[in-house]
Order: sequence, then C-alpha cells, then structure tokens
Amino acid sequence: MTDKAARRQRFEQVYHRIADELLDELRKENIPDDAIQWYRKSLDYNVPGGKLNRGMAVVDTVEILKRRPLTEDEYLKSAVLGWCVELLQSYFLVSDDIMDTSITRRGQPCWYRNPGIGMIAINDSFMISSAIYRLIKSYFKKEAYYIDLVELFQETTWQTEIGQLIDLITAPEEVNLDKFSLKKHSFIVIWKTAYYSFYLPVACAMYMCGITHTPIPFANSSLPPKDPYEIAKSILIPLGEYFQIQDDFLDFAGTPEQIGKIGTDIIDNKCSWCINTALLHASPDQRKILDEHYGKKPSGGDSELKIKAVFEELEIREKYAAYEEKVVGLLRERIADVPELGRENTLRGEVFESFLSKIYRRSK
Amino acid sequence: MTDKAARRQRFEQVYHRIADELLDELRKENIPDDAIQWYRKSLDYNVPGGKLNRGMAVVDTVEILKRRPLTEDEYLKSAVLGWCVELLQSYFLVSDDIMDTSITRRGQPCWYRNPGIGMIAINDSFMISSAIYRLIKSYFKKEAYYIDLVELFQETTWQTEIGQLIDLITAPEEVNLDKFSLKKHSFIVIWKTAYYSFYLPVACAMYMCGITHTPIPFANSSLPPKDPYEIAKSILIPLGEYFQIQDDFLDFAGTPEQIGKIGTDIIDNKCSWCINTALLHASPDQRKILDEHYGKKPSGGDSELKIKAVFEELEIREKYAAYEEKVVGLLRERIADVPELGRENTLRGEVFESFLSKIYRRSK
Repeated sequence: MTDKAARRQRFEQVYHRIADELLDELRKENIPDDAIQWYRKSLDYNVPGGKLNRGMAVVDTVEILKRRPLTEDEYLKSAVLGWCVELLQSYFLVSDDIMDTSITRRGQPCWYRNPGIGMIAINDSFMISSAIYRLIKSYFKKEAYYIDLVELFQETTWQTEIGQLIDLITAPEEVNLDKFSLKKHSFIVIWKTAYYSFYLPVACAMYMCGITHTPIPFANSSLPPKDPYEIAKSILIPLGEYFQIQDDFLDFAGTPEQIGKIGTDIIDNKCSWCINTALLHASPDQRKILDEHYGKKPSGGDSELKIKAVFEELEIREKYAAYEEKVVGLLRERIADVPELGRENTLRGEVFESFLSKIYRRSK
Repeated sequence: MTDKAARRQRFEQVYHRIADELLDELRKENIPDDAIQWYRKSLDYNVPGGKLNRGMAVVDTVEILKRRPLTEDEYLKSAVLGWCVELLQSYFLVSDDIMDTSITRRGQPCWYRNPGIGMIAINDSFMISSAIYRLIKSYFKKEAYYIDLVELFQETTWQTEIGQLIDLITAPEEVNLDKFSLKKHSFIVIWKTAYYSFYLPVACAMYMCGITHTPIPFANSSLPPKDPYEIAKSILIPLGEYFQIQDDFLDFAGTPEQIGKIGTDIIDNKCSWCINTALLHASPDQRKILDEHYGKKPSGGDSELKIKAVFEELEIREKYAAYEEKVVGLLRERIADVPELGRENTLRGEVFESFLSKIYRRSK
C-alpha cells in the first residue's frame, strides 16, 4: 500500500468511529430504528466518498504546525475536525445537487435521486450539518478554543451560503452574459469555495494547536504585526481563488485524459473564469458569437466549437498562463513573509507551501 | 389599540432593526446588491408573518422571571432571542413546505412557489438559520451564557430535524396504517414541535436571566434538588405534546368557525392523535374501514365521513376529554412543585401557568 493510501485508510477509520458515535447517541434517546438506519445510510452515502483532500488537510496542517508526529489523541482530534470539514462539504453538495437538478455525484446518482428519498434529502442535508456541532461538542467542549471552532464553522457556513446565493442568481436557466463579470466570478469563487476549502481546514488546525489571535511580526517587511488567522486568510483566499480559476481553465483546456471527464462549463452556461476573461476582451463580433452560442448543448456541438474558437482567438491559454505566474509570484512573496518563529505550534510558511506545491501548474 | 396589539407592534419593531443589521453586515462585505435584496425579500416574506406566539413567549417569560418591567436593553435582548426562535421556525417551515409540496402558508403562496424562487428556497432556508447565530453573536458574545445559547439553538435544531425525519418516513405518499402508533405519534410531536415551540423560548429566557444549571429544591416533594432546565423540560415537553394532541383533536372535532379552517388531517393521511387512538381501540371491522378510507380525498367525501363515523363510534371525543383532564392534572402537580424562591431571576411556576392557561380547554 502506498503511503498516500495508508493515510487515507487511517483517516477513513475515524469516519466509522464518529458515525457509530452519532448513531449511538440516537439509540440512547430511543429514536425509532428506521430513523436511525435512515441517518446511517444518508451519512454513508454522502460523506466519505470524495477525494477527502479538505479533511485530510486538517491532519497534515496539524503535523506541520506541531513539527513532530502526532500522538494517537492528537491524530484522532485532528481527524475529527477533518471530518467536520467533509461534513460541511457534504451538507452543501447534497443540497446543491437538488438546486442544480444534477444527475450524478462522485460516480453515483445524487442522493435525492435515489428511490424513496426525493425531497427528504433536504432534511438529510440539515442533519449532516448538525452532526458537525455534535462532534465538536463531544470532542472539544473542554478546550479553550471550543467556541472558536463553533464560530469558525458557523461563519464558514454563512460565507458558503452567500457564495451559493450569488452563484444561483447570476447563472439562471436562460443565458444572459450581461450578468457575468470577472468581479462576480471572483466573489462567487471566494465565498462559495475558497473559505470552506482552504481557509477552514487550516484555521481548524491552528485552533487545535492553540494558536491565538495575538499578532505576530512579518519576516521580510516592516508592516506592523498581524493576527495569524488574518495572515492565513490573506494567503489561502487568493490561493483558493487561483485553484478554482485553474479548475475553470482545465475544464476548457484540459484533455479528458488529464481531467478524467469532459468539460461542460461552456454548454452548461457556467460563470467560469474563461468566459468572463473572454467577455472582457471580446470585439463586438466576438461578443455576438459568445451571446449566441454560450450555454448551448450538445457537448462537442457546433455552438461549443464556436465558443472554443473565440477563446483561442482571444488567447485564453496565454492569459491564463500569465495570470498563474502573477498570482503564484504574489503568493510566494506572502508566504516568504510568514515568520519562522522556531517554536512548536506557531504558524509557518510550510503550511501554505504544501498547498501551493500541490496546485502549481497541475494538469489534472 | 389593544394591549396585545401594542405588544405585538413593539416586538415587530425589533424585527426591522435586526433585519437591517443583518443586511448592513453584508453591505460592509461588498456583497453584490442583487444578493442583498434577495436576502431581504426572503427574510421579510418568511419570518415576521406568523402568530409570533413562540417569539413573544421569550419576552413574556423574561418579564415573569425578572418580576418587574424590563429596561429598554432587556426588552431588546429578549426580543432578539424571540426573533431567533421565530427564525428557527421559519427555517423549518420554508423547507418543510418543499418537502411536503405544500401550496400555501400563512395565507400566501409558499416561498418556493413564487416565480423565480423554486429550489433556491433551500439555500434561503439555510441563510435564515445562519441569521440566528449571527444575531446571538452580535448581541450576546460578551455574556457568560453565550455558548449556552448557541448550544441550545443547535440542540433544538437537531431535535426538530429528527422529529421531521421520523414524520417524513412514517407518513409517506401511500397510506399504510401499520406504520402508525401512539408511540410514534408521541415521538414525532415531542421532537418535531415541543422542543422548539415550548422548551426553547423558556430556556432562552432562563439563560438571559442568568439562571444556571445549579440544582434547586422541589416545593412539595422530598425528591433531591434538580437542574432548573430539567424541571422546565419535565413540564414543557408534556405541555407541548398536549398542545399538539389538542391541535390534532380540533382538526377533527373543531368547527371551521372555531379553528378558522377546515381540518384535513384525515384526507391528508396525517399521523394524528385521533387515528392512532382509533387504531388502538378498533375492532377488526372498524380497522378495515380505517385501512380502506383513511387518507382519501376529497374533503367532505364519502371516505372522510366513514372515518369520522368510526371515530365517533370509538368515542374519540370522550377519550380526548379524559386525556386532557389527566395530563392537565399531572402538569398542575408538577407546576405546584416548582419552588417559589422569592428572588428575582429564579424559576417560578407562573412561567408554566401562563402557558397552560392559554391552552387548557381552548377551542381555537
């Protein structure tokens, strides 16, 4: 077994433990058995089947901050927080799939499309979200940072809901490119994805390591000291935006072999970085083609080809490469500015380098 | 203006204040204006239009516990908590209406049935729920009981979700009376309604008055002292169950003049106290009629009349009257056992009497 597979397996074992604990609590309340079985099925179907990058990032970050291997108890606690991040994501995916009338998710039918489920999936998504706070209470109630964790998850939930709202009202059924802009795109990406995917796992790990909001100095600049959580945010939010822009770009430019699927952003009328960049630079004639052909099925059809041709004329590939080099340069500067204070449980640049190195120039 | 109308008006003024504050926070984050307008519309449509009994119960209970008129600041804070209770209810109603494919709510179309809303209502219900924690943080962050309030709302949310799940899987589309039982009914009623409608407002008021979990003695029994929150629960949960059983009974036995609507529990296949009590006492022949005719439309049709005839044969009216006298006797005993400690900000029987007197033998 590879090291990566072993890490995943250990992380997955914690899922089984916490799912059992959540159900045991219900049994103690004498909840009818059919309801308990239902909840188990909903958790097992929706929570553990993803890539688990976000959840495992909590464990990885705690290890970097501690600068040593974790004890059993530290591993368990960081993995529980990791699963809380995965639960938050699952809560959003179950409900997003209903709102987007999606068909499949992670290679299986969306939960709400299973026989006998339907709109009960809405309540199931609520119950997945509630599990987060039950777990935090059960594992962290006695810690000084308990309320910080609760507020962090509530704040992140709120941010993601706002991102989802902006997304939903920006790309409605009928195509209207006037509603799009790079600014809107940036908002949606940051609020709907970056906070919960990048800032949340790192902030969980920081709280678990006892890092407080006391300002720390910068390494290479004379700016006044700053709250380490604000420093983390100032790197992880642009990093998350970069990750999503890259995702948008690969949906257009990646081959199916690279990205493991056929991109559908163009035919699905998605408010993607590519269309927004194209809109910014399009001539009146090119704009006319975009207006007429964006968001038109089928995949590989004439409309999609016309859009792709305009993207190539507008040199979206080159513009993406330029954007990537620029944002990575900025991120590297900010990371270099994180002080290496040399003690256990203090913020370190390595936390962010580890994210950046997994993302930079990826092709899948 | 009546005293009751004046009280309602004062309470409603606080709604406008908190809605403004929630939107101002979004403005500070530079959220696009169409998203802010959307959120305002969703709040205004779904939150303030109900009877407001649950929300105003927080204010009333704080007044009883303080034993004096409230200061401006105390009024504001207790009303904010009252609106948090109303927000929680609104969160559930918006989503329940989708799950039950309901048509109208509080005399207007259900939110999700408005043009351009549809399944975006799911995210709207999430955002209504998130408002609770933003308000608690904004008004109570510095109080010793801040975390108690947060946990109280999370716990109550969880309880209501479990009640909703049991309800949803107990009364599915096709009629199957084997799934019903008085025990299931009791579970659904307690978890789906009693916690959030009765215990939650009182517990909010108790925390706001600084009541801790330190055990207090009983007035008329030699039992060991008990956590005042447990005492409150031991009265308010059976009281809430009684309230819902009464609601079920009035749906069958109340005249349209009394209840302001035509009862539809029988034709809607509802897991009501009446059908469950009938099932417990039915002869094989009566059971056959119930199986064949329960949950069959139209209103006033032959099936409904046959069900009602069986209910009368089984003396559901008399059985309800006996239940009511028994439960009220028990509640009065428990209320009499709440000690009158004679100090400000201690639990008092009057809190519960005020609920009971509004409910006992009501006919609307």
